[in-house]
Amino acid sequence: MSGTFNSTDEICRKAKEASRSLALFTADRKNRALLCAAEAIKEHTEDILKANEDDMVKAKASGMNKGLLDRLYLDKKRVMSMAEGILQVAELKDPVGEIIESFVRPNGLMISKKKVPMGVCGIIYEARPNVTADAFAICFKSGNACVLKGGSAAVNSNAAIASAIKEGLSKAEADPNSLGFIEDTDRESTVELMKKKEYIDVLIPRGSASLIETVVNNSVIPVIETGTGNCHIFVDSSADLDEAREIIVNAKTQRVGVCNACESLLIHRDIAEKAIPSIYKALSERGVEIFADKEALSICPDMSEAGPEDWGREYLDYKISLKIVSGIDEAIAHINKYSTGHSESIITENEENGERFLNEVDSACVYVNASTRFTDGGEFGFGAEIGISTQKLHARGPMGLKELTSYKYIIRGNGQIRP
Amino acid sequence: MSGTFNSTDEICRKAKEASRSLALFTADRKNRALLCAAEAIKEHTEDILKANEDDMVKAKASGMNKGLLDRLYLDKKRVMSMAEGILQVAELKDPVGEIIESFVRPNGLMISKKKVPMGVCGIIYEARPNVTADAFAICFKSGNACVLKGGSAAVNSNAAIASAIKEGLSKAEADPNSLGFIEDTDRESTVELMKKKEYIDVLIPRGSASLIETVVNNSVIPVIETGTGNCHIFVDSSADLDEAREIIVNAKTQRVGVCNACESLLIHRDIAEKAIPSIYKALSERGVEIFADKEALSICPDMSEAGPEDWGREYLDYKISLKIVSGIDEAIAHINKYSTGHSESIITENEENGERFLNEVDSACVYVNASTRFTDGGEFGFGAEIGISTQKLHARGPMGLKELTSYKYIIRGNGQIRP
Repeated sequence: MSGTFNSTDEICRKAKEASRSLALFTADRKNRALLCAAEAIKEHTEDILKANEDDMVKAKASGMNKGLLDRLYLDKKRVMSMAEGILQVAELKDPVGEIIESFVRPNGLMISKKKVPMGVCGIIYEARPNVTADAFAICFKSGNACVLKGGSAAVNSNAAIASAIKEGLSKAEADPNSLGFIEDTDRESTVELMKKKEYIDVLIPRGSASLIETVVNNSVIPVIETGTGNCHIFVDSSADLDEAREIIVNAKTQRVGVCNACESLLIHRDIAEKAIPSIYKALSERGVEIFADKEALSICPDMSEAGPEDWGREYLDYKISLKIVSGIDEAIAHINKYSTGHSESIITENEENGERFLNEVDSACVYVNASTRFTDGGEFGFGAEIGISTQKLHARGPMGLKELTSYKYIIRGNGQIRP
Repeated sequence: MSGTFNSTDEICRKAKEASRSLALFTADRKNRALLCAAEAIKEHTEDILKANEDDMVKAKASGMNKGLLDRLYLDKKRVMSMAEGILQVAELKDPVGEIIESFVRPNGLMISKKKVPMGVCGIIYEARPNVTADAFAICFKSGNACVLKGGSAAVNSNAAIASAIKEGLSKAEADPNSLGFIEDTDRESTVELMKKKEYIDVLIPRGSASLIETVVNNSVIPVIETGTGNCHIFVDSSADLDEAREIIVNAKTQRVGVCNACESLLIHRDIAEKAIPSIYKALSERGVEIFADKEALSICPDMSEAGPEDWGREYLDYKISLKIVSGIDEAIAHINKYSTGHSESIITENEENGERFLNEVDSACVYVNASTRFTDGGEFGFGAEIGISTQKLHARGPMGLKELTSYKYIIRGNGQIRP
């Protein structure tokens, strides 16, 4: 792959140039390019698999754990599904060009607010090669060039995928620099990328909490913070306990390594004696360790004891914290103190408490009587997702194509000057 | 004033607490509090004027220039107009609570996207005391608590205004900590403020380019960059030259110290000989010095010569740069290279060129045949403005109440779990 890619500065500058023409592409033209990119990935399956094999050999030798190895691993089916993913994005509605609002001022100025691409999106991610194809497709369809910087463990796989996509773009007569790929995987080039404010309009880190923190602390480019989820479920005194148990089991165990998994349970004191033993049984049968406060332990001594640090933890594992609360006020206050602002759910048959929870819990997604696992672009019907924002600036919750656009004001006059 | 205000950490924490209840206020309740705040400012006019006198004495002694002294100075009329400004904000439509969209998923989940306040807005500004009242009012009406940190030169005036507003809030039974005022004016407390991510949701710097750069480079809180404007006017070959001259004179001289003033002229080569002498005459009559490229100088040698650094300059003064270009392509490329992304205008009778300019110039506000001076919340009909964003994330161009809101997803289920 060497020789295919350039310096960070050059990649960013060329991506900015490419973004100028890409912003003017029709949906059809973007879709044709996405088709060619998907086709090129299919054609280069063998190259991609060979590159992935190199990454896998190194990763195994370095002692990478099983979960991460599985994320890194590609086979024919996974490569095909990457290409299919690009085709699915091509089918989505193009958000660019929509006139959001239009008004005429008393002086005759006609003002329109028009949806436009962000420009260049920088994506910093870890060892999941499929992000290379996914992130490119969603950026491209929303009219954005992208600059991608993946983790070092996946560098060969990522480079092979990026090369194939660039070839596809060239075939479709789209600028291959619409995908900027940074091959250097050292920390210096990441720091350099985070300073390229003249070329990059928004930076989206995807990965661990520590990666995200590094980007937030060092970037001079506006950042969208994604994906840290200390998600809570509050079981109110009026909850249907069978429903509560099913939702809790689903939210904790359906997939444990994800940001919308439940990490903390709050149980209303009035139903604690009835609820906790059955929740304990259901979770422990699935191998989940519960870290509970003293009061809950007195009801069910088989659980582990929680330390104060447990309330703020995102375990991403078969672990969950549990605390007894005096009611909805304490539940809301606890969540607003410890949550990362991702997703929280109340299980209740009391409509008033449900509404209070929805209004007063300050998180991106707030649920009544459903699993937190639904916080997802696909589950929301967005068709594709670049991440889940836990900040309030720009976008909140699952981010699809629309969330990768900005707007501009277009003003048509006939000689107006300001008095 | 000493003793009234607390440490930066405490102020931020209390503002966050206050924001929880404020987010649930009805428009009526917010309006009543704004009325009381305006009333309290009127009642404390004498205190505010006395505090301002202290600031003015120190500022004069320190040799502050006339323009800045005028921005700092308050008299009865200016204090009244501050109070009137708060009342005007009370009259604006409350953006909070609007359901932006609503949809039902195949599994029965009902998802609503609801407009909510940001939470706490941090505003860092310089020596304009009226910002204290303006920023508070616009944050409060959009359901946000604010933490204000003004420049040291205005600290007594700002503190007196903040005290009056807090008194008004208390009278209206709103939490006076909805306005957090940081009295310390040293650099350390600014740096501290920029790290209070747990309490502050967005940071908006208002002031000089260097203040804004400091905030962008040091904040870990999401920032909205405002107000740097290297605004261009391109006079196309088909322009009505009388109209062009009037617009240029207005955009440059109607007020020179503002971000939407024109700083750079691009003149189509085909009309340069005709246009430049009359533009030169009109501008120089108003005391404007023109920094022109060599080709333009050969047409009109009385202008000054531009250096390469002139193309990127925001003079904020009776100065402007001027360059001859070969046509719309060069004009667009030049603007996209040197502009700060604020406001640009084309003067043309050619509709196609007008549309190309609107589509291809990558700035917040793009005009055909009008002065750039219209980029302003008031002129756009927003009623109030917290600043003009030059970034693409979250908000672009003039920011009113709506731009100080975020949204949340509210999801109502009846036991849904993810398969």
